[in-house]
Amino acid sequence: MGMVGGGPGAFIGPVHRTAAELDGAFTLVAGAFSSDASRSVQAAEMYGIAPDRSYDSFEAMMRAEAARDDGIDMVVIATPNHLHLPIARAALTAGIAVMSDKPATATLPEAQELAQVVRRAGCPYALTFTYTGYPLIREARALVRAGVCGNLRKILVDYPQGWLAQPIELDGTNKQASWRCDPMRSGPGGCVADIGVHAFNLAEFVGGRQVTRLLSDLGTLVPGRRVDDDAAVLLRFEDGVRGVLTASQVAIGELNGLSLRVYGDQGSLTWQQENPNILWIHRADGRSEILRSGEARLGLDARAATRLPGGHPEGYFEALGNLYRDFAVLLRSNQASPLLPGIEEGLRGMAFIDAAVAHNGNGWIDLNV
Amino acid sequence: MGMVGGGPGAFIGPVHRTAAELDGAFTLVAGAFSSDASRSVQAAEMYGIAPDRSYDSFEAMMRAEAARDDGIDMVVIATPNHLHLPIARAALTAGIAVMSDKPATATLPEAQELAQVVRRAGCPYALTFTYTGYPLIREARALVRAGVCGNLRKILVDYPQGWLAQPIELDGTNKQASWRCDPMRSGPGGCVADIGVHAFNLAEFVGGRQVTRLLSDLGTLVPGRRVDDDAAVLLRFEDGVRGVLTASQVAIGELNGLSLRVYGDQGSLTWQQENPNILWIHRADGRSEILRSGEARLGLDARAATRLPGGHPEGYFEALGNLYRDFAVLLRSNQASPLLPGIEEGLRGMAFIDAAVAHNGNGWIDLNV
Amino acid sequence: MGMVGGGPGAFIGPVHRTAAELDGAFTLVAGAFSSDASRSVQAAEMYGIAPDRSYDSFEAMMRAEAARDDGIDMVVIATPNHLHLPIARAALTAGIAVMSDKPATATLPEAQELAQVVRRAGCPYALTFTYTGYPLIREARALVRAGVCGNLRKILVDYPQGWLAQPIELDGTNKQASWRCDPMRSGPGGCVADIGVHAFNLAEFVGGRQVTRLLSDLGTLVPGRRVDDDAAVLLRFEDGVRGVLTASQVAIGELNGLSLRVYGDQGSLTWQQENPNILWIHRADGRSEILRSGEARLGLDARAATRLPGGHPEGYFEALGNLYRDFAVLLRSNQASPLLPGIEEGLRGMAFIDAAVAHNGNGWIDLNV
Amino acid sequence: MGMVGGGPGAFIGPVHRTAAELDGAFTLVAGAFSSDASRSVQAAEMYGIAPDRSYDSFEAMMRAEAARDDGIDMVVIATPNHLHLPIARAALTAGIAVMSDKPATATLPEAQELAQVVRRAGCPYALTFTYTGYPLIREARALVRAGVCGNLRKILVDYPQGWLAQPIELDGTNKQASWRCDPMRSGPGGCVADIGVHAFNLAEFVGGRQVTRLLSDLGTLVPGRRVDDDAAVLLRFEDGVRGVLTASQVAIGELNGLSLRVYGDQGSLTWQQENPNILWIHRADGRSEILRSGEARLGLDARAATRLPGGHPEGYFEALGNLYRDFAVLLRSNQASPLLPGIEEGLRGMAFIDAAVAHNGNGWIDLNV
Repeated sequence: MGMVGGGPGAFIGPVHRTAAELDGAFTLVAGAFSSDASRSVQAAEMYGIAPDRSYDSFEAMMRAEAARDDGIDMVVIATPNHLHLPIARAALTAGIAVMSDKPATATLPEAQELAQVVRRAGCPYALTFTYTGYPLIREARALVRAGVCGNLRKILVDYPQGWLAQPIELDGTNKQASWRCDPMRSGPGGCVADIGVHAFNLAEFVGGRQVTRLLSDLGTLVPGRRVDDDAAVLLRFEDGVRGVLTASQVAIGELNGLSLRVYGDQGSLTWQQENPNILWIHRADGRSEILRSGEARLGLDARAATRLPGGHPEGYFEALGNLYRDFAVLLRSNQASPLLPGIEEGLRGMAFIDAAVAHNGNGWIDLNV
Repeated sequence: MGMVGGGPGAFIGPVHRTAAELDGAFTLVAGAFSSDASRSVQAAEMYGIAPDRSYDSFEAMMRAEAARDDGIDMVVIATPNHLHLPIARAALTAGIAVMSDKPATATLPEAQELAQVVRRAGCPYALTFTYTGYPLIREARALVRAGVCGNLRKILVDYPQGWLAQPIELDGTNKQASWRCDPMRSGPGGCVADIGVHAFNLAEFVGGRQVTRLLSDLGTLVPGRRVDDDAAVLLRFEDGVRGVLTASQVAIGELNGLSLRVYGDQGSLTWQQENPNILWIHRADGRSEILRSGEARLGLDARAATRLPGGHPEGYFEALGNLYRDFAVLLRSNQASPLLPGIEEGLRGMAFIDAAVAHNGNGWIDLNV
Repeated sequence: MGMVGGGPGAFIGPVHRTAAELDGAFTLVAGAFSSDASRSVQAAEMYGIAPDRSYDSFEAMMRAEAARDDGIDMVVIATPNHLHLPIARAALTAGIAVMSDKPATATLPEAQELAQVVRRAGCPYALTFTYTGYPLIREARALVRAGVCGNLRKILVDYPQGWLAQPIELDGTNKQASWRCDPMRSGPGGCVADIGVHAFNLAEFVGGRQVTRLLSDLGTLVPGRRVDDDAAVLLRFEDGVRGVLTASQVAIGELNGLSLRVYGDQGSLTWQQENPNILWIHRADGRSEILRSGEARLGLDARAATRLPGGHPEGYFEALGNLYRDFAVLLRSNQASPLLPGIEEGLRGMAFIDAAVAHNGNGWIDLNV
Repeated sequence: MGMVGGGPGAFIGPVHRTAAELDGAFTLVAGAFSSDASRSVQAAEMYGIAPDRSYDSFEAMMRAEAARDDGIDMVVIATPNHLHLPIARAALTAGIAVMSDKPATATLPEAQELAQVVRRAGCPYALTFTYTGYPLIREARALVRAGVCGNLRKILVDYPQGWLAQPIELDGTNKQASWRCDPMRSGPGGCVADIGVHAFNLAEFVGGRQVTRLLSDLGTLVPGRRVDDDAAVLLRFEDGVRGVLTASQVAIGELNGLSLRVYGDQGSLTWQQENPNILWIHRADGRSEILRSGEARLGLDARAATRLPGGHPEGYFEALGNLYRDFAVLLRSNQASPLLPGIEEGLRGMAFIDAAVAHNGNGWIDLNV
């Protein structure tokens, strides 16, 4: 496989590599790691890439690799959002499959264009909505489908982080903060696009139904910031199920506190990303149980997504590795897992961001005593 | 003290008695426990009330007690909401102080009328927003005021319960469900009035600022129910601080899961009612601490609200007892604690319910891919 | 009721009063609160005791109260351990029932003498092993008896505290530390007698079987201390069930962290005192459930010990109040609850302390590589 | 690298491979996966090993690989315990470094022989005491060394599992249970050797001092089992620090619940393997903090052992991967990390098992009331 982006200072590049290689299905052999030539070389060395497969630009990489007999059959896109479309387009056009970081693109029109490209392409496109790879998230999805919760009533998803509580993008030292807070590179959404879209995707993934309406309250709580850094979005799913999505990047003390609660008329499920190997089930008759990853009584999807016996924590790498494993099966055996997010999920995420940003702040009422 | 309501089948009557008597400041000696005479007698026996001080009606009680030399100086109102106003008016007019269950009344106009009565009365009125009595909630309030969180940015308050997940009000056996789901007795709000108002009050109490605007999404998720049983309300506080209030009475598996999170630019606080003796503080420099009730380093308000050394759990009775203790000081020594909720908090709660119900559902946007 | 001890500086006196009065079964009307006359008067005022029922000595109290028509029928012993025997003897001899703080006495011979007195007395004696009053401890005991765990295999009980991590008994300002670290007043055991005996009693209470053998490792980890402040004791129960009891008063960061785990061949139970309203059940088939106090599906003993709906935390006062409630039934209706600890449990606790202290340190083996 | 053992049905073989390859330092290219030829071939295919490097016996592998120019420089031993010595001896004699599963050998004399072999060998030997690889365990060790706890007083380590609660070794279907409960293959210890030794190592690793004396209470709680399945061991460290080690494999409901508590006169540390990214620090002044892996304020060892930002869970693979990373540095750069367990730790572990088994049950005292 190849990679675009993921050079020095990029958090997510080495993470993708480790996860992709976790089960031995992929090996990183080529890359265009940075638009800065010296940084690209530096990254290639770090990754142990042969010099002739370290490229100055993604266009050069796609051209050269497509021409090689042993050229890459897949590329990981680990760049800021505004580059997702051109890179994916170049790859797919060259017959190279794409595993893209989320969100799909920087804007909804870009995503719509990408969807066209994907539909015409002869090779797969997938999207790393990583949290869908956790065994117990897959169990939760299966339990909802199996009716354990009965008819759904409400889905609450909360995603607090605190790393942007101060304006750290301003001094230029934090590369992550810089581009994620720059609308030219991240797109119109800040927090809502960076992590809100994860929460949105997770709610649809586990809930098994689509959001049809929303009402958003996005805020920029750090003075001078150019994108939102806090979000509250009320959701309505297709069959009337209600939802509340909250996300923040200024929540001091929170690291990556994604959590999900699904309530139905027969039961409910609760899960937290920072302690991902536990899933709570509460039933209408009063029983309250936990499921733990690695347990024999879990469903097929969860068990297939687990590499260790219960009690041996698996985490973020393994969750992401599960997406890569599904992707390998899709790419090599042409079997698409319904669990692997693709362009449809990408489009939906971009529509969510677009609507949340465009209609932010409607509907408020004064409170008078 | 006397009590109105709290007869057989009422959950809250004996709870008030126990809490009021906890520190020996009050003793229940009179009551009009039920509009049904035989039930009232039954309750009087249960409470050990002398027959001549068990009354058929609250009007009779106020008259008779006001005329006795050893008459009650205070009455607890533990009835459905629609009776709060007439009982409080009768008591205050008779010179008897009032400790009322929440919400203040059934409707906002009633609350406005009650406010007039209270302001004219020569004796105190207080409201059992019980959760304000927890030591660590009082600590949280003090920490916010002391600037530990810096400038506030966001307050999230969540109050899930599951006891109304099925339409248990329909068969008439659950007295609590019956009146709380009956708009003639509870007022226009269901969940939003029964528990949403607690969450609202807690956010204002700890946050130290008032909500000025809101946007509500109330739902009736159990078919046939006549009031809302699920609520999501976006809040804006006076200085722009954002808030999200969620509450539900159909959240299977949840008992009384009130929780509060307060985020500022210097730190944050997290508290959960079901494990109330712990308060998390996260600071901007990365430190994450817990405070535990009973610890010597807590502030004055928290220490004054604690009766046991750390590690010896105090709970709901003690929290409610703290309100009664404050009320006793107000009544006997004419010193009003800023921590004791009164008619202003009652009015604000009713305005919240009124606005949330009246403007439910504004502002939605379709989500199109 | 009356009280001996519990004067200024005593933590446990007011706690007993509040718990005893919680359900209205007892009212504190007499006391010999301190051997220092002025402190005794001060305490009587604090408790609101009539001057003629505030006594200089427990002997005077027993004499005078036994002679009154309205004399107390019960006395709470809230003194250091060395006074338990003489006070209990004086009370029982005068026909006054006794609710004694634990441990039963200061030494095993004293306890044996007390047992004789109790057996000859015409009125009840009970012992405040408070933790047996928690609803979910009573549920745990019932579940073990009902066979939910199958044949028991192992019981682990751990009781860490940290308040004696420094030699605070030396400067005389902490009255609690002073007498608890003084073998003349506490008896030969320190930590093992003060809290180890609680852990021992809890293991026998929930496990439903008696310890027959033990092996102890008591330590004095704070230099200069005159009693043990840390304990590890291996236990063997009558039918071969194994146990491990650990307790410490120098465990910095621990407040009152009593916990219990019971393992059998069909299931296990886990409980923690600082979050006492949750009980974990794990079953051999893999299911892991929590029970929460207040839930309708709990057994009779647990439900009878609960005053509030689920989710409304009850704590230490309510647990102790449950012992007083049981005691009231015993005293007034002559019905002995099997749940109420009495002199047998007291004797067993003293035998535990005696054996642990007397044979401390036997059996060690060198570890050589 | 090569592997011995780890064939079909072996839990730990693929785990070693994934962890060893996690950072790209090692690639599995050779193996003697099973003594059964067809199973060995099957394993080789699963691992993607070239047929000419899949061997029938470890002796053949060492000979052949030592003779190849591209022969392995390291072998992973993932067999039952009784084979650890012969395989390690064969490898080290052939100049191939060894990463061995724990415990070092099946018996203490074997370990002493192995120690001789290791000391004479020209290449490294290390031991996968995996839990020492967790970032926060390394932080805990560093904090103890830095004096954060002051003078240590007590170390408690607990390791409950439940997977052997029934006699699953008897029917032969569970390969893990079969050999671990067979003294001919596991050595004289059962639970104490399989997991007790992990707990022992962790206590010495974090505590930074050696156990000098012990007192053991090992039990066989499942009828018919041939080794112990439950252990309680009292420990004394070199400077008088006390310890309690409990371990069980019949603790229903427990998966892999290793936990550690370290108490000193200035502070304490608490850690749990199933939620490994949190470390509690309690200080003598009352502060109670959590540290979370990935946080910038952690020490060098912890940060070097972390691959993801805080809040992105890392688990067992990453912990084991950290040992392989340290081993790669040792092997390739001849720099020995003090954090990497070797033959000394192996010897100590075997001495622990040996003493615990040999002197089981000494020192008991009858408890008489």
